[in-house]
Amino acid sequence: MELNERKSRAGGRGARRALRSAPDFAMLPALKRNLPLCEPMDGDQIARIDDASMAILEDVGVVFRDEIALEDWRRAGADVRGERVHLDRGLVRELITTIPSSWTYRARNPERNVSFGGNHSIFVPMTGAPFLRDLDDVRRWPTVADLNMFHKLAHMSPALHSTAHHIVEPMDMKVSHRHLHITYSSMTHSDKTFMGMTTSGKNAEDVMDMCEILFGADVMEDTPVVTGNCNGNSPLVWDETMLSAMRAFCKRNQPVLCSPFVLGGANTPASVAPAVAQLNAEALSALAYTQVIRKGCPAIYGHYLSTVSMKSGAPMAGTPEISLMNFMIGQMARFYGVPWRSSNTLGGAKTFDAQAGYESAMTLNAVLHAGCNYIWHSAGWNEAGMHCSVAKFVVDAEMCAMGYRMAEGIRWDDFDEALRAIRDVGPGGHYLGHPHTQANFERAFFLPKLFDNNSIEQWQAEGSVEITARALAHARKLLRDYEKPKLDDGIDEALRDYIARREREIPAEDALNTEH
Amino acid sequence: MELNERKSRAGGRGARRALRSAPDFAMLPALKRNLPLCEPMDGDQIARIDDASMAILEDVGVVFRDEIALEDWRRAGADVRGERVHLDRGLVRELITTIPSSWTYRARNPERNVSFGGNHSIFVPMTGAPFLRDLDDVRRWPTVADLNMFHKLAHMSPALHSTAHHIVEPMDMKVSHRHLHITYSSMTHSDKTFMGMTTSGKNAEDVMDMCEILFGADVMEDTPVVTGNCNGNSPLVWDETMLSAMRAFCKRNQPVLCSPFVLGGANTPASVAPAVAQLNAEALSALAYTQVIRKGCPAIYGHYLSTVSMKSGAPMAGTPEISLMNFMIGQMARFYGVPWRSSNTLGGAKTFDAQAGYESAMTLNAVLHAGCNYIWHSAGWNEAGMHCSVAKFVVDAEMCAMGYRMAEGIRWDDFDEALRAIRDVGPGGHYLGHPHTQANFERAFFLPKLFDNNSIEQWQAEGSVEITARALAHARKLLRDYEKPKLDDGIDEALRDYIARREREIPAEDALNTEH
Repeated sequence: MELNERKSRAGGRGARRALRSAPDFAMLPALKRNLPLCEPMDGDQIARIDDASMAILEDVGVVFRDEIALEDWRRAGADVRGERVHLDRGLVRELITTIPSSWTYRARNPERNVSFGGNHSIFVPMTGAPFLRDLDDVRRWPTVADLNMFHKLAHMSPALHSTAHHIVEPMDMKVSHRHLHITYSSMTHSDKTFMGMTTSGKNAEDVMDMCEILFGADVMEDTPVVTGNCNGNSPLVWDETMLSAMRAFCKRNQPVLCSPFVLGGANTPASVAPAVAQLNAEALSALAYTQVIRKGCPAIYGHYLSTVSMKSGAPMAGTPEISLMNFMIGQMARFYGVPWRSSNTLGGAKTFDAQAGYESAMTLNAVLHAGCNYIWHSAGWNEAGMHCSVAKFVVDAEMCAMGYRMAEGIRWDDFDEALRAIRDVGPGGHYLGHPHTQANFERAFFLPKLFDNNSIEQWQAEGSVEITARALAHARKLLRDYEKPKLDDGIDEALRDYIARREREIPAEDALNTEH
Repeated sequence: MELNERKSRAGGRGARRALRSAPDFAMLPALKRNLPLCEPMDGDQIARIDDASMAILEDVGVVFRDEIALEDWRRAGADVRGERVHLDRGLVRELITTIPSSWTYRARNPERNVSFGGNHSIFVPMTGAPFLRDLDDVRRWPTVADLNMFHKLAHMSPALHSTAHHIVEPMDMKVSHRHLHITYSSMTHSDKTFMGMTTSGKNAEDVMDMCEILFGADVMEDTPVVTGNCNGNSPLVWDETMLSAMRAFCKRNQPVLCSPFVLGGANTPASVAPAVAQLNAEALSALAYTQVIRKGCPAIYGHYLSTVSMKSGAPMAGTPEISLMNFMIGQMARFYGVPWRSSNTLGGAKTFDAQAGYESAMTLNAVLHAGCNYIWHSAGWNEAGMHCSVAKFVVDAEMCAMGYRMAEGIRWDDFDEALRAIRDVGPGGHYLGHPHTQANFERAFFLPKLFDNNSIEQWQAEGSVEITARALAHARKLLRDYEKPKLDDGIDEALRDYIARREREIPAEDALNTEH
C-alpha cells in the first residue's frame, strides 16, 4: 500500500506535467455513450438465444480440459462426465449474478483511471501480432524495442485507454521470459491501464505479482488494475492453459475476458443466430466458472468474431455477419448484466490499403452501435492479426477518436445561441466570421490530422503523400515528442528485481531468430 | 402508351435472359430494412428542431431567386417580401402532408422496378465528377465513352439500383447538349431506374420528354420513373435554375431531391443540432414548394452533408458529425412522413487509399443506421467528388452489397436445424463437413470478391496485387462480360430523333478541351 501511494502521487504529478506540456496527448476519459444501441432482437428472440444456449450447456455440455476446473465444477454441483461438464441453467444463472456490471479500472496515474461497463467503453490496442510493418512500412519480426515503440504510441493516443500487452511479439526475448518484459514495457512506457499475459497459469501469476508491486495487494483486492484474456476453443472447449491463467486472475480479483475465438462457419454453424447461441453458451460457461473460482470477481463477456471464407478457410474482417453478431452479443451481455468485449478496426489486407480502411471502419461502427464496453484490437490490426502496422496504428487511434465523438451523441448546450447566429447570418450569408463559429469551430467538427482533405493541387504541391507515408511521419513525430511518464524509482527497482529473479528461476529456451 | 408497352415487354425479355445467363449480375430488390434505426433524438428534441426550423421559416424566411416561384408563393398565401418568402408553419405542414411517403420506381424493365420509402432503400451511384480515375488509375477528364462505361458497371452491380445520370461529366460533349447524351446513356446502357439532369428548366424538360418517349406520358402520371436533384444554396436560398428544373419534374409528377448542399461550419452554424435546424428549414421550404407546383407529386427530403475543415476550408467526409446529422435528419424526415436521401461511400482522398476506405465505410454505416431511403453517391466518389474512380466504383458497389446484407438483419429460418448441428458436432468438433454447413455456407456469410483474405504467402505467390489493381481487373472483366439490355428499335430511334432535333434547336458552345 505504501509503495502504491508513493507511486500514485509521482504518477499524478508526471501526468499533470504531461498534460500541461502536450495537451494533444491528454487521454480522453472512458467513452460515455449517448447514442442509442442497435438492438435487432426483440425480447422473444433474446429468450430464444438464451434458451438455446442453456439447452446446449445442459444437454451437450462443455469440455474443461483441466483437472482443477473439473474438481471445482464437481464441488459447485455441476454434472461432470469425464471432461464434459453439463451445466444446469439454474446454476449458471445463479453463478453469473455475482459478476459486477461495472467498475473503474485503476491506472497507476489516477488521472487515467477509466470507468467501465454500462454505457462506458474503452479502446484497447491490438495484441499478439507475430509480425509488424515498421516505421519504414517493412514487414518483419518484432523485437522488444518495437513493442516499446507501440506502447509509447498507445500512451500518446488520446482515444486509446490502455496500452494492452504484447501488441507485437518480442521475438528477440526468450519465450519463457517474454511475459515479464512485456508486462514491464506496458507498466513503464505508459501510466494508462494495460493487459496481463495469460500464456500460462504461472505466467499469469507473475503478472499478478508485478501488479502487486506496482499497485499494492490491497488496491487489487478493491479494484481491477489489469485485464487478462482467456480464449475458448470453439466449439465448447476450454483448455488448461487458459483456465489456469483465469484462476490466477480471478483469485486476485482481476477481470478476464471470456473469449471464445470464433471462426464463423468453421467452428460454429454457418448461420448467424445459431452461431450466437453457441458462442453465448461458451461465454456463459467461462463466466460461470470465474464465479466458482471467486464469487464476485469481475469478468467480461465476449468474443473474437470472424467469419471464414468458404473458398480459402481464411478468417474475414468487416463482413456484415460480424456486425450482426456484434449487435446480438451486445444484447445478450446486457441481458445477463455483464460488461462485454469485442474487436475493432480489424483488417484482413496485406498492406494498409483501401481494403484495410473499409474493413476497419466496418468493425468500428459495428462495435460502437452494438455498445461494446471493452473495445479491443482498436489499433494496428491488419493481415488478420498477423501483423501490427505502425501506420495503421496511428490512423486507427484517430478513427477511435472519431468513433468516440460520434458515440458521445449530440450536444445541445449551444442550441439557442447558434439559432441566433442563423438569424444574424440570414439567407445567402456565411458563418465563417460569425462569433459563434469563432468560439465553437474547434469542438464543433472533428478535424482528422491524418486524413488529407486539401485540393489535389495542394496535395501535389506537398509531394502527393499518401496516407501510409503521412501516418508514418506522424508516428515518428510522436516518438520524438514522447516523454516517459515518471515511475517511482523504488517501484521500478522492485519490478526489475522481480524480473531478474524470475529469469533465473524460469528455464529459458532460445528466442526465435529475428534475423530475416 | 403504345411505345411504352412495346418497350416494357422487350425490356422484360432482355432482363430475364440476362438473369439466366449471368446470375451474378442480377439486381437485388430494393433493400427492405430489418435493422433498428439509430434515433438519437427523443420526441422533445425532434419537437425542438421542428420548432426552430419553423421559426426560421416564419421569422427569417427563405430567399427564392425566381419570379415564378415568388408569384406561386404569393398565390399560395405566403408572406413574400422582395425575394424573401416567410412561411407560416401551418402552411408548411399543410403543404407537405400531400407528399407520398412511399412509391415504386418504374424501370423500363419491370423486373428492375424498386420499392421506395418507408423501410425500403435504394443505392444510387455517384454523379457529377469533373474527373475520373480510369481503368489504368490515371486521373483525367472524362469523355462520353467513360460515362457509358460507368453506366455499364452500374448496370452489372447487383446492389446498385440505379445508373444515376452524369456519373462523370462527358467533357467531349457540348455543354448545352450534354444532358441529352447523358440521359440517352442512362436509358440505353441499363434497364434500371436512373436520374434526370436538372442543369436548367429547359434541360429538365428535355429529360421529361425523353422519359415520355421511353415510358409514355400516362405511365409517368401514375408512377415515378426518374429522379431529379435540386441543390439549395445554404443558408436559405433557392435559385432559378434549380426551381425551374423542379417545376419541370413536379409538373410531370416526377420526384426531385430537395437537397441543401451543406458545408457544415461554412454555410451552417458550427454545431450539429443548430445546423440540422437550418437544413431542415431549407428542405421543408423546397418540399412545400413542390406541393405548390403540383399537389400530391412525389418529393424527397435530404441533403448533401459535409463538414468543413476550419484549417483549409475543404469539405470533409466520414466525420462523426456527418454521421450524427444523418441520424437526426432521418428522424426529421420520418417525423414529416417524407422519404429522404443522403450520400454514401464519400471519400476525400486523392487516391484509392486507406483514407478513402475508412471515410467511405463511415458514411455507409451512417446512412444505413440512419435508415436513408435514397442512398446516393453510393459508388466511385473520391477527392470530395472531384473524381470518380473506376476501382473505387466496383469496390463501393460490393460494399453496398455488404451493407445491404447487414441492414436486412438476422435470419431465423434455419435456427432449429442449425442447433441440431451443434449437437451433432459437439465440443471440439468442426462444422466444415456438416450437412447444414454444406447447405448454407453460400448464403450464410458474405464472401467479398474484391477483398483479399488469403495468407500473405498466397497473396505474394499471386503477385502481391493490391486492391486498386484487383478492382480494375474486375472492372475490365465486367466490361468484357457486359451485355447491353435490349431496347425496342422504335423507341431507340425516337430517342435519337429527339436528341438530333434538340441539338439543332439548342445553340451549342464548344466542348471543353479534354486533350490534357
